[in-house]
Amino acid sequence: MAKADIGLIGLAVMGQNLVLNMNDHGFTVAVFNRTLSTMDEFLAGGAKGTRIRGARSLPELVALLKKPRRVMLLVQAGSAVDAFIGQLVLLLEKGDIIIDGGNSNYSDTIRRTAEVEAAGLLYIGTGVSGGEEGARLGPSIMPGGSPAAWRHVKPIFQAIAAKVGGEPCCDWVGENGAGHYVKMVHNGIEYGDMQLICEAYHLLRDGLGMEAPQMHAVFARWNRGKLGSYLIEITRDILAARDEDGGPLVDRILDTAEQKGTGKWAGISSLEMGIPLTMIVEAVHGRALSALKDERTAASRVLAGPSPRIGGDRQAVVADLEEAVYAAKLISYTQGYMLMAAAAREFGWRLNYGGIALMWRGGCIIRSVFLGKIKAAFDRNPQLANLLLDPYFTKQIDAAQAAWRRVVARAVQKGIPVPAMASGLAFFDGYRRESLPANLLQAQRDYFGAHTYQRVDRPRGEYFHTNWTGRGGSVTSTVWKKG
Amino acid sequence: MAKADIGLIGLAVMGQNLVLNMNDHGFTVAVFNRTLSTMDEFLAGGAKGTRIRGARSLPELVALLKKPRRVMLLVQAGSAVDAFIGQLVLLLEKGDIIIDGGNSNYSDTIRRTAEVEAAGLLYIGTGVSGGEEGARLGPSIMPGGSPAAWRHVKPIFQAIAAKVGGEPCCDWVGENGAGHYVKMVHNGIEYGDMQLICEAYHLLRDGLGMEAPQMHAVFARWNRGKLGSYLIEITRDILAARDEDGGPLVDRILDTAEQKGTGKWAGISSLEMGIPLTMIVEAVHGRALSALKDERTAASRVLAGPSPRIGGDRQAVVADLEEAVYAAKLISYTQGYMLMAAAAREFGWRLNYGGIALMWRGGCIIRSVFLGKIKAAFDRNPQLANLLLDPYFTKQIDAAQAAWRRVVARAVQKGIPVPAMASGLAFFDGYRRESLPANLLQAQRDYFGAHTYQRVDRPRGEYFHTNWTGRGGSVTSTVWKKG
Repeated sequence: MAKADIGLIGLAVMGQNLVLNMNDHGFTVAVFNRTLSTMDEFLAGGAKGTRIRGARSLPELVALLKKPRRVMLLVQAGSAVDAFIGQLVLLLEKGDIIIDGGNSNYSDTIRRTAEVEAAGLLYIGTGVSGGEEGARLGPSIMPGGSPAAWRHVKPIFQAIAAKVGGEPCCDWVGENGAGHYVKMVHNGIEYGDMQLICEAYHLLRDGLGMEAPQMHAVFARWNRGKLGSYLIEITRDILAARDEDGGPLVDRILDTAEQKGTGKWAGISSLEMGIPLTMIVEAVHGRALSALKDERTAASRVLAGPSPRIGGDRQAVVADLEEAVYAAKLISYTQGYMLMAAAAREFGWRLNYGGIALMWRGGCIIRSVFLGKIKAAFDRNPQLANLLLDPYFTKQIDAAQAAWRRVVARAVQKGIPVPAMASGLAFFDGYRRESLPANLLQAQRDYFGAHTYQRVDRPRGEYFHTNWTGRGGSVTSTVWKKG
Repeated sequence: MAKADIGLIGLAVMGQNLVLNMNDHGFTVAVFNRTLSTMDEFLAGGAKGTRIRGARSLPELVALLKKPRRVMLLVQAGSAVDAFIGQLVLLLEKGDIIIDGGNSNYSDTIRRTAEVEAAGLLYIGTGVSGGEEGARLGPSIMPGGSPAAWRHVKPIFQAIAAKVGGEPCCDWVGENGAGHYVKMVHNGIEYGDMQLICEAYHLLRDGLGMEAPQMHAVFARWNRGKLGSYLIEITRDILAARDEDGGPLVDRILDTAEQKGTGKWAGISSLEMGIPLTMIVEAVHGRALSALKDERTAASRVLAGPSPRIGGDRQAVVADLEEAVYAAKLISYTQGYMLMAAAAREFGWRLNYGGIALMWRGGCIIRSVFLGKIKAAFDRNPQLANLLLDPYFTKQIDAAQAAWRRVVARAVQKGIPVPAMASGLAFFDGYRRESLPANLLQAQRDYFGAHTYQRVDRPRGEYFHTNWTGRGGSVTSTVWKKG
């Protein structure tokens, strides 16, 4: 019996679907799952009649594989990954490859790459996006890790990945944690996109008083325009879904959002790197606020606000809203790209920004026509400093901004929370300003903490201190340059 | 010669001023500084004629102290603290106390408390706020760590702390990292307050076209009202300060804000705990954006916006602005208190929320009449679930909200960034809503990832999955409860 091309450990939703996808593309896959009954059910069910083979232990799995062996983990991020790596390192040989396809934190992947390489093996940490259906039919795959491993997994990954215009939504991202970092930013952007859609839905529902079928029509129209994307498409479908009694299913769902951690990690990384990833953080915090359902219910009985109903031309309000979602979305992607550039500087990765847009263009949750425009911007100028400075996007945001401002101003007056749209607009208005009020802030810091400041009329890097009160001690009361 | 009451290591601005403050209150202080010349200058300068004594080595310092020995570190947060602890543990005896008075990360303080206690000593990690002048004349002191150490440092700390109505702005906060955690939240709130002041300044400067002397008058008036606080007071003074040629000094200061990390830590902790600390994070991100001066300058030549000038009744605009700053400030403190409550649950601290307000009421950078109102709210109801639900604050925010909405809407229309004011308003509008649009978000998560949802018509804790597409595999297509 011929050896298998790849081994896969972990047969939850993503694992089962990836295995079937690999099988469809002519690869022989050996599988293992800690709970053997799950594997048996899979082999007797979805995998019946395929070349997929089950192994009842890790040594058995390893024995089934061609060399260099490729073993892919699709287990829960965290200690389970380390536990399997610890066992596999003892079973595998020099040059074999361990692949982590879960949502691991990039810093774990940096550490694990070093550990696995030190054991003489190769390591890949890869983002896989697209949910259940993406995994089955073609996900977006973002691999990083040991560069020498790439040629061994490339044929499989690029075969099973989504394709856009014949090009696979999978390419090498960079060393050690780069793949999982880019996946983390992808997920953060997904949080931002979902929050923006929810804010639009909130304005349509409470501001315009629309019912689900009317909103379904709005999202159906938007999906044919510049917002066209997987998330708008599924929102359209969700708004058409009916509960058993025929009522809109969306109205029966509890408004407490959950999260698994990657959006949070993106926010933490942005704070650590000093990159204003404001929209994604607002989206993460928006989920946290939604989860405080009991607190909100109590507060709703005490704290009043204005009537949410928006008057005037409804068509015009909806048209404005499409522009606002689009403009805010552009800001979120801009911030995500700023974060990736900062991480690349920090960790020494050479990221291909256009390639990342192509990987996200298909297969994954944030896939959209919009990402094709981002790819085109980096094709025009691979050194593009900021997405907003690409001529196409400069024009787009300029065309959208009046409507965007109207939407946020209306929401603010009507008491409907639009934290992501508002935060994106504040970022835009800050980013496009040569002069911000931080001169006052630096004066305050120097006043109370002798933290010094730079001057507009002196070269950068010269620091000054003012004895603002006339009472400061001699330690800091003279003009001095920071050491 | 009598032994000294306390030893202090680290004679930078804060250290020197704290030592002089202790000396003023009758305590004998022994000091040590790694760079001996700094100590010699201090002993021959500011400390001349006092009972302050210098030690030229750590063993000499320890030999100068009464038992149980109290040694306070005021050195740079990070490895320097660990290095000094490592040396002191070898020199001190059972029951002696090491105190870290720097801006250490609370998680380091949790770890160090355990390490120092394991060595048979006691540990205190304490926040000290008030800047140079506070340290000299009466800071706010927020100590946590080994409970058994408190009675030994209490007399010194409460003597040198600021007083409000005769009460010291210093009390026991809680075990291990509690003191540094509360100080971190204090600093985060300080970031938020400073950002709000900068946004108000920006609106006055660019929206109303005011010059520094006019703005000085506005802040002078505000300082006599409900915004009365140290930060408003120094802003008033800063706006009156003149450069050597007589022009406003604030106009010469470069608008690139710096930061030392505690605001960032507060943001990270909020993401980890799932508490929407949106205003402080916007303030941290605002500093990060200001630091991108070159990028902003480049962007300002490409990205246009509306004219910032606000027409109409200027007095009314300024009056609205005072309300907006006040309301947003209330949100920031609300969020900070929510974060402390979450941390207390996480780390098992029993925090005294009114006591914290009292500690912040005087001495520290955020001291204000407003904190007296927070103290009063917790006096009325020590179990207050949320600041906004205190009857006084409910009334205050209700009275302010119309003006607050006008300010944010105006700023949005005029293109002046007010990220903190807008973010605070979005939080308020979300927090006071029983129903948020997260039902749609949960539907999306279930659609693409089979993440399940709860229903409004079923008990909490029951999870449902819908096969939205009709194509999902059997793994997730049935209704099931999360395990």
